[in-house]
Amino acid sequence: MPRFAELNIMINRLERGPLNGITDVVGVAVGHETLFAGEGVWRPGSGPFRTGVTVILPHLGNLYDKKVATAVHTINGFGKVFGFEQARELGRLESPIALTGTLNVPRVADALIALAIEQNPHIGVGFAETGRQGYASVNVVVGETSDGYLSDIQARPIGEKEVRAAVAKAATGPVAEGAVGAGTGTSCFGWKGGIGTASRVLPAEKGGFTVGALVQSNYGRPEELTIAGVPVGKHLRPPEGANRTEDGSIMIVLATDAPLNSRQLGRLCKRAVLGLARTGSAVHGGSGDFVIAFSTAVHFPDRPEQLVVERPYLHLQPIMSVFSLAVIESVEEAIYNSLFMARTVVGRDGNTRHALPVDEVMAVIRRYGR
Amino acid sequence: MPRFAELNIMINRLERGPLNGITDVVGVAVGHETLFAGEGVWRPGSGPFRTGVTVILPHLGNLYDKKVATAVHTINGFGKVFGFEQARELGRLESPIALTGTLNVPRVADALIALAIEQNPHIGVGFAETGRQGYASVNVVVGETSDGYLSDIQARPIGEKEVRAAVAKAATGPVAEGAVGAGTGTSCFGWKGGIGTASRVLPAEKGGFTVGALVQSNYGRPEELTIAGVPVGKHLRPPEGANRTEDGSIMIVLATDAPLNSRQLGRLCKRAVLGLARTGSAVHGGSGDFVIAFSTAVHFPDRPEQLVVERPYLHLQPIMSVFSLAVIESVEEAIYNSLFMARTVVGRDGNTRHALPVDEVMAVIRRYGR
Amino acid sequence: MPRFAELNIMINRLERGPLNGITDVVGVAVGHETLFAGEGVWRPGSGPFRTGVTVILPHLGNLYDKKVATAVHTINGFGKVFGFEQARELGRLESPIALTGTLNVPRVADALIALAIEQNPHIGVGFAETGRQGYASVNVVVGETSDGYLSDIQARPIGEKEVRAAVAKAATGPVAEGAVGAGTGTSCFGWKGGIGTASRVLPAEKGGFTVGALVQSNYGRPEELTIAGVPVGKHLRPPEGANRTEDGSIMIVLATDAPLNSRQLGRLCKRAVLGLARTGSAVHGGSGDFVIAFSTAVHFPDRPEQLVVERPYLHLQPIMSVFSLAVIESVEEAIYNSLFMARTVVGRDGNTRHALPVDEVMAVIRRYGR
Amino acid sequence: MPRFAELNIMINRLERGPLNGITDVVGVAVGHETLFAGEGVWRPGSGPFRTGVTVILPHLGNLYDKKVATAVHTINGFGKVFGFEQARELGRLESPIALTGTLNVPRVADALIALAIEQNPHIGVGFAETGRQGYASVNVVVGETSDGYLSDIQARPIGEKEVRAAVAKAATGPVAEGAVGAGTGTSCFGWKGGIGTASRVLPAEKGGFTVGALVQSNYGRPEELTIAGVPVGKHLRPPEGANRTEDGSIMIVLATDAPLNSRQLGRLCKRAVLGLARTGSAVHGGSGDFVIAFSTAVHFPDRPEQLVVERPYLHLQPIMSVFSLAVIESVEEAIYNSLFMARTVVGRDGNTRHALPVDEVMAVIRRYGR
Repeated sequence: MPRFAELNIMINRLERGPLNGITDVVGVAVGHETLFAGEGVWRPGSGPFRTGVTVILPHLGNLYDKKVATAVHTINGFGKVFGFEQARELGRLESPIALTGTLNVPRVADALIALAIEQNPHIGVGFAETGRQGYASVNVVVGETSDGYLSDIQARPIGEKEVRAAVAKAATGPVAEGAVGAGTGTSCFGWKGGIGTASRVLPAEKGGFTVGALVQSNYGRPEELTIAGVPVGKHLRPPEGANRTEDGSIMIVLATDAPLNSRQLGRLCKRAVLGLARTGSAVHGGSGDFVIAFSTAVHFPDRPEQLVVERPYLHLQPIMSVFSLAVIESVEEAIYNSLFMARTVVGRDGNTRHALPVDEVMAVIRRYGR
Repeated sequence: MPRFAELNIMINRLERGPLNGITDVVGVAVGHETLFAGEGVWRPGSGPFRTGVTVILPHLGNLYDKKVATAVHTINGFGKVFGFEQARELGRLESPIALTGTLNVPRVADALIALAIEQNPHIGVGFAETGRQGYASVNVVVGETSDGYLSDIQARPIGEKEVRAAVAKAATGPVAEGAVGAGTGTSCFGWKGGIGTASRVLPAEKGGFTVGALVQSNYGRPEELTIAGVPVGKHLRPPEGANRTEDGSIMIVLATDAPLNSRQLGRLCKRAVLGLARTGSAVHGGSGDFVIAFSTAVHFPDRPEQLVVERPYLHLQPIMSVFSLAVIESVEEAIYNSLFMARTVVGRDGNTRHALPVDEVMAVIRRYGR
Repeated sequence: MPRFAELNIMINRLERGPLNGITDVVGVAVGHETLFAGEGVWRPGSGPFRTGVTVILPHLGNLYDKKVATAVHTINGFGKVFGFEQARELGRLESPIALTGTLNVPRVADALIALAIEQNPHIGVGFAETGRQGYASVNVVVGETSDGYLSDIQARPIGEKEVRAAVAKAATGPVAEGAVGAGTGTSCFGWKGGIGTASRVLPAEKGGFTVGALVQSNYGRPEELTIAGVPVGKHLRPPEGANRTEDGSIMIVLATDAPLNSRQLGRLCKRAVLGLARTGSAVHGGSGDFVIAFSTAVHFPDRPEQLVVERPYLHLQPIMSVFSLAVIESVEEAIYNSLFMARTVVGRDGNTRHALPVDEVMAVIRRYGR
Repeated sequence: MPRFAELNIMINRLERGPLNGITDVVGVAVGHETLFAGEGVWRPGSGPFRTGVTVILPHLGNLYDKKVATAVHTINGFGKVFGFEQARELGRLESPIALTGTLNVPRVADALIALAIEQNPHIGVGFAETGRQGYASVNVVVGETSDGYLSDIQARPIGEKEVRAAVAKAATGPVAEGAVGAGTGTSCFGWKGGIGTASRVLPAEKGGFTVGALVQSNYGRPEELTIAGVPVGKHLRPPEGANRTEDGSIMIVLATDAPLNSRQLGRLCKRAVLGLARTGSAVHGGSGDFVIAFSTAVHFPDRPEQLVVERPYLHLQPIMSVFSLAVIESVEEAIYNSLFMARTVVGRDGNTRHALPVDEVMAVIRRYGR
């Protein structure tokens, strides 16, 4: 299974980072925990399971004490994300981002809270007792798409054990893609989708910053699939009996090392949909399409010692257009990677999502002059 | 403990409903489950507990099949609500609203999902299998404020058992107020706060609609308390050693029988802050202040049989100002009820929130010419 | 100059309307007034002028007395639209929508107010005097993109005379496209852009509704131009000396005869960016990209006689995905029409925007297997 | 006519600034131009006029070259503000803020554009020609409330001459209040309202920053008037024949010298409604209530020389609650000043707004124990 870049199809306008992944943003770590268990007939509440959890950490330190700037954005809100209101208000991320299957969200959020308390035992303790502000709670951020075609979602099988495992495995370096972690049971254009990642590096004269994207792809109908402008879905469809699709969703996580503040990150978020559009998405009515962006450039303490500090401020406007391009290209290619890197998965009731057949895709693409 | 209305202080401009509560909106049911367990020193994870859950149901039928119009609004977003994105996108409520303590939110959301699946076993089943749209998931709505001064919040002790009990107890009719359900452990202006409710009825020539409010009050510093315009907090403070406060929060739920759509309900939501302001709130920086409104007038099927139906549409603009007043007065009085109806609660580590002393409050108010 | 449909390139998934324009939505009228005056060197404040105004009317009656449902959406907010706040609050359109060059906006807004007063002389008159609500003001909606490359924008030459002319000419039926009205001086991918329109009709079983789009295109760099997935801009560039571009903008107007309310129209608005993306846009940092949608299905009186009326309500969710597609395809094709139908324009200082050479475009497209 | 502070009524929790006005924020300048012309019967389009324009300048330099951080907020959107979309996107203010009567907005916006071009002749000139980015346009910000009860609003009599005069008069130092500038023809609680201002200074240990508010008050019904918690409107009404009111509006401008960014200023904006609530406002349905905030601490160049610079960053969260209080108290007192400082104005058709009778107000207030 090749990554998309190996196929030499897309005409990039920006350079890829060395890993061509979200972990090209220095410090960012990703961890997956996959739950692949059971076969055959669906017994609601008991499996089979094709699901998991993927965590994205802006850094491997204590995120509660070293928060980062963040922004969130809703493309279409038919989804069950957690933690967006406080992220909007404060513009801060103070825990790992977790992605999972739809109905797992509460249990995954609960698990992230447990981990935060473990690392920060003063959470829930008042000011006078600790000299810290408030009965400090913690805002955890969780996103999701539904893996219901392949997995028993009623059981909500992802909890503290799995989240703990994913966080423990979180590492900088190359990111596993395809049917792994939160991508284990998702579908994309009627094929097997999953986790994908990509990155772009701005030219030196534009600051040389890195933008990385990681997606959990779970959307699209077979006929919509477009790759590098070629209407692949017009010519290539999943096998009979394995091509049924419903409205789906996508979670998009963006990272950058540019010192962007929350408002500026929000501008990046809004460009992600353009990358999504290039793959043929029509953002269906039942789609839960969300974007979460963060910057690793500045760490914000939970309890600052000084009110006013000097901080780097990036004049974004002169280079906003190149950031826009970096986001679009990263998201587009991350989606292709989520497809190209996913193997065939047979799930509950024998429901099957086939791996996108690379050779056949390439044959179509060549017919279109690439 | 008198309800505020019995004190004859406030000059209402609108009539109260017969119950002077959110359940004056016909069909609305409220249920509480209270967890009051343990004494003495806080053993993180093991109590003592002064917490609970309160559920508000637009009707006692199957909410997933008979959804209602809704809107949500964030006054200050330092909070961990669940389900807001989909409520914004679709303008529909399809499960009970639950209120609880901050860190309980994920477990309460998980419990609401379990109940929804129980009642609608096709959730998570695909179209071809059921003739229903999508791998239907369900969007549950949960709000919170922190009861960390009195209760062990690290333990997150409210889960499926408690939610199930609250839903089972949910009833139309008078609503228990004060230190009950989600209000068991909350604080307001340094006194014991909790659940409060109130209602207003529009004049017949303005449509005669009912507006009801229910609050979970957990905000404010002693010196800020204002009742009917009187700066009570200037003269009356909680006892020494029991007056420490932190930034707090409030959850406000609004119900109406007027056939308002989601955009129109959003306009009601934005008026709630005016009622909050009248009680002396300064909406602190660490406040999670959220409003959820719904209309009971129309039930929306999960799977409509016809694309276009005739529905009542209310020309809101000519009577928006009286709706505004109904919201403001309901919220203001619901907050007073949450204070006046709350008994003293001693919590973890002996932390105490005293009941607001009615006689002393009345003495201050009389000094101010009421 | 052929319309895009004549080239038989794009694989539509939905049918076009009979006119393939926004006026396929019955009752919608469009009027242009073009200001093409002066030659040669720019004398700031005195020309030359390559600008104009385009008005879109949901119907030819009195819009103030027969308002229509509307929604507005900001893709990137580097622009100077007028009237968005009230459109958001009330979800109503009560005057023609006007599009023009950036700095003309205030004068065009002023002109629309003058016309509204002329038609509704009670505007600005109080309740007691007229039995009408309020010192009724009127909310006019104006959008813009900058035609500064070809036209003297400092002069702000479009005012009451031009707006009056555009409204007088407004008609149902085919819409003039290209370098006309508000499109007279705009640029698109370094070529001459302008006004374009297109439409789609939903299948009968999806309600058979019509969606129409009209754009004022003024964005994109030559290398970004993409047509039906083909990277045309990679191979075809404007002549030397006429290829300089800056960040640009696009105004998108959507109309439908489906009885959508304001929230639902907002969902349509958010899909427009997907059509824009298909043309290669990267939504630059200096882009003012806005969407305005309205429904012609229901007329809302300025002063309703009854509070509650029966109105058609469309269950949008089951057919949202096809609406999404209708919006995307309409916007994409409207943009192509704005390019294909625009003739070369020489403006101030000899600045030139060339017509997109159809034959050369077709040659590139054929190389890519279409 | 005393300013409210001289009456020693309100129990401030924060200190006032030396001028107790928005100009306590160093560098901020305010200018008024008043149009008070004609008597007697309204001849639509010809007067009488009781209107004007008020400009607020963050500093007296070239605002286009030295932009400041800004945020805007809509409390109720029944209004016709200009420039909000770009202010939201970029978080920058690059021209004076102007306040005026509703239908004057376009002409005032046009005038501000003219002044910006005069000061920055490269506006509308392209990159290659000037080395500057874009066909630089300028985003001007204008707010309004309707003075239709006293003035002929159909005529839209405020234009370039008046705006130029207001800008020319703009000065630091004490601000004229009451029936002046944009406040010449407005009404508040059935009395004469207008321009009012106030300020608060944070304690030194909270950073010692200054917050100033300036309002154009034009809302409220007589019975709603509340001063320092006392229901003055219950006892004191305007004379018969001069007490008719309609839904009104308020514009609120906030300034601070704290180095707040756009997101942080947005949090301040949202607190303004709490000050408004304290005066008895119910935010009527026809109300256009908007807030604009800016910080004078940092000047942002139009064309930065370096991408990344060091800038002061304020950790807002630890002191957000005191900022909240500063905003609330400033807005509340600015509104009182707008009432107490306004003289009686007789307008079109003999319509009269009486000055609030200070002695009678004080008599009521004393009855309520102040």
